[in-house]
Amino acid sequence: MKKLINAPETAVDEELAGMVAAHGDLIRVIEPNVVVRVDAPRQGKVGVISGGGSGHEPMHGGYVGMGMLDAACPGAVFTSPVPDQMLAATAAVNGGAGVLHIIKNYTGDIMNFELAAEMARAEGIEVSSVVIADDVAVKDSLYTAGRRGVGGTVLAEKIVGAAAEAGADLATVTALCQKVQDNVRSMGMALTSCTVPAAGKPTFELGEDEMEIGIGIHGEPGRTRMKLATADEITEMLALPILDDLPFKRGDSVLAFVNGMGGTPLMELYIVFNKLAQILKGRSVTIGRSFVGNWITSLEMAGCSITLLRLDDELTRLWDAPVKTPALRWGI
Amino acid sequence: MKKLINAPETAVDEELAGMVAAHGDLIRVIEPNVVVRVDAPRQGKVGVISGGGSGHEPMHGGYVGMGMLDAACPGAVFTSPVPDQMLAATAAVNGGAGVLHIIKNYTGDIMNFELAAEMARAEGIEVSSVVIADDVAVKDSLYTAGRRGVGGTVLAEKIVGAAAEAGADLATVTALCQKVQDNVRSMGMALTSCTVPAAGKPTFELGEDEMEIGIGIHGEPGRTRMKLATADEITEMLALPILDDLPFKRGDSVLAFVNGMGGTPLMELYIVFNKLAQILKGRSVTIGRSFVGNWITSLEMAGCSITLLRLDDELTRLWDAPVKTPALRWGI
Repeated sequence: MKKLINAPETAVDEELAGMVAAHGDLIRVIEPNVVVRVDAPRQGKVGVISGGGSGHEPMHGGYVGMGMLDAACPGAVFTSPVPDQMLAATAAVNGGAGVLHIIKNYTGDIMNFELAAEMARAEGIEVSSVVIADDVAVKDSLYTAGRRGVGGTVLAEKIVGAAAEAGADLATVTALCQKVQDNVRSMGMALTSCTVPAAGKPTFELGEDEMEIGIGIHGEPGRTRMKLATADEITEMLALPILDDLPFKRGDSVLAFVNGMGGTPLMELYIVFNKLAQILKGRSVTIGRSFVGNWITSLEMAGCSITLLRLDDELTRLWDAPVKTPALRWGI
Repeated sequence: MKKLINAPETAVDEELAGMVAAHGDLIRVIEPNVVVRVDAPRQGKVGVISGGGSGHEPMHGGYVGMGMLDAACPGAVFTSPVPDQMLAATAAVNGGAGVLHIIKNYTGDIMNFELAAEMARAEGIEVSSVVIADDVAVKDSLYTAGRRGVGGTVLAEKIVGAAAEAGADLATVTALCQKVQDNVRSMGMALTSCTVPAAGKPTFELGEDEMEIGIGIHGEPGRTRMKLATADEITEMLALPILDDLPFKRGDSVLAFVNGMGGTPLMELYIVFNKLAQILKGRSVTIGRSFVGNWITSLEMAGCSITLLRLDDELTRLWDAPVKTPALRWGI
């Protein structure tokens, strides 16, 4: 295992310390391992939090700041955070207007966020939650009843965070998050596995001439393992199931998001985007906004995912709104 | 070779087409493979261009836009662009106030930029150039007389681009670029090699328990090949030679830049940043600004580099100035 770490058991703590050292103007870290916006809680503002296993950076800690998340709960690598983290995050960002939990659909995350919400309500904090389940690859999965939550989560955090920043109330913010979930679809693939530090060996094995289509962000099995194909063929294998699922229709405008799994060069992501743009044009779907990069990753996995979000004026405006976080920043 | 490409010989062209599809509001691509700011040339503004082999994305094409580069010339992977590209870029961004060439110190780049500058001058365009040579690892290198140009280039492009945007003249912009070069130092390391698409096999071999300290961004040999060490030990091996070289002194304020080589998770870069912050504190050097991410890469190489730029008020103000490019965006 070749990694820039000191020890698997200290990696997340040292990562968080490094984030504070680099971005102390935007975030702080409170016990037990919660990344909190430096000016939280803000009185009268709905708090928006998310969380999940580490190893998907910059999600979620890199998205804490003005116009996006108020706090994030990073678990151990590929491991759900515990309810105490979610409760601490909820309390830390509670400005009296309630707190939204954005939850990726994994059994452990769901269970722990539900428990934390109950505990928070017992403390008098109003909590709502929305589950993101945008991965069209598989119906159920290794860690999931129903679809997995993947790239759509990043878009939900940005859009919902903008609305909360602008003063929307909890019911509005919650309904908006559900609207994103209802209009977003994703699918991913892997060229290589990744290695969880504590495991010390690759999560799964892929032959030198093999790839996995429909992979999950923890290396969960996808739809099919097959021989390597070209970037164009792979892009079709990801884009067509997404387009057919919602379905996206002629005349729709979308946010087209090509995401790297962590170990894939930007050059390759743009080659995928090039083919995706051709496919969308062929379906008379307009690219309203573009997003390309390593935004929801699986450690050093090589591969990519495609996410399409159907846009309307409201979602476009909120996507464009100012944001200032360690990983995502514009307009300010 | 596992890559999201269609064919090695079309990879750069398809990448550029994907960039235009994603970022057509910011950039266009003209023949022969020049990424140009969409509103260039701007009358009366000094043009700032750079270029070099592809495979280091987002550098340089991802840095074309408002407040940074006016154009970039991407060569084949790890191969210098040709003089015709540099000439076309120079002509495309010439608004009558002259054009600065920011050149990374590699023999091919230097030779071709010099030739292009001569041709541009013959066409009546005033051209100046600054060579970035910030890598303290080795005195001379495989493709270099003198030090290699690495991470400092990204910082120079941002800072110089901000000054040109604000209306500085060619002499001022050129002197500023030289000031960045005079105050910036870098060093990198690799855990793994990378594979140039056209070669189809790794550029160099590293054992399962080995790393290379002082690596170049094309996999050029560094200072030493040695057994794997911890992140803290590696950070010391990179930071101490940098600190001693300028030298950085007690009371200095620096822009601390921890860069990923392309295949290294953000988690690991923050672990390195955490140790770097401790080392700087021990030397009474203040972190004035931070920059963490995959900003100058070597395809999917795993590893990192550290760059330190000594800041003053002018450099800090220009670093903070608005920028809007495919890869770097803030303040607008």
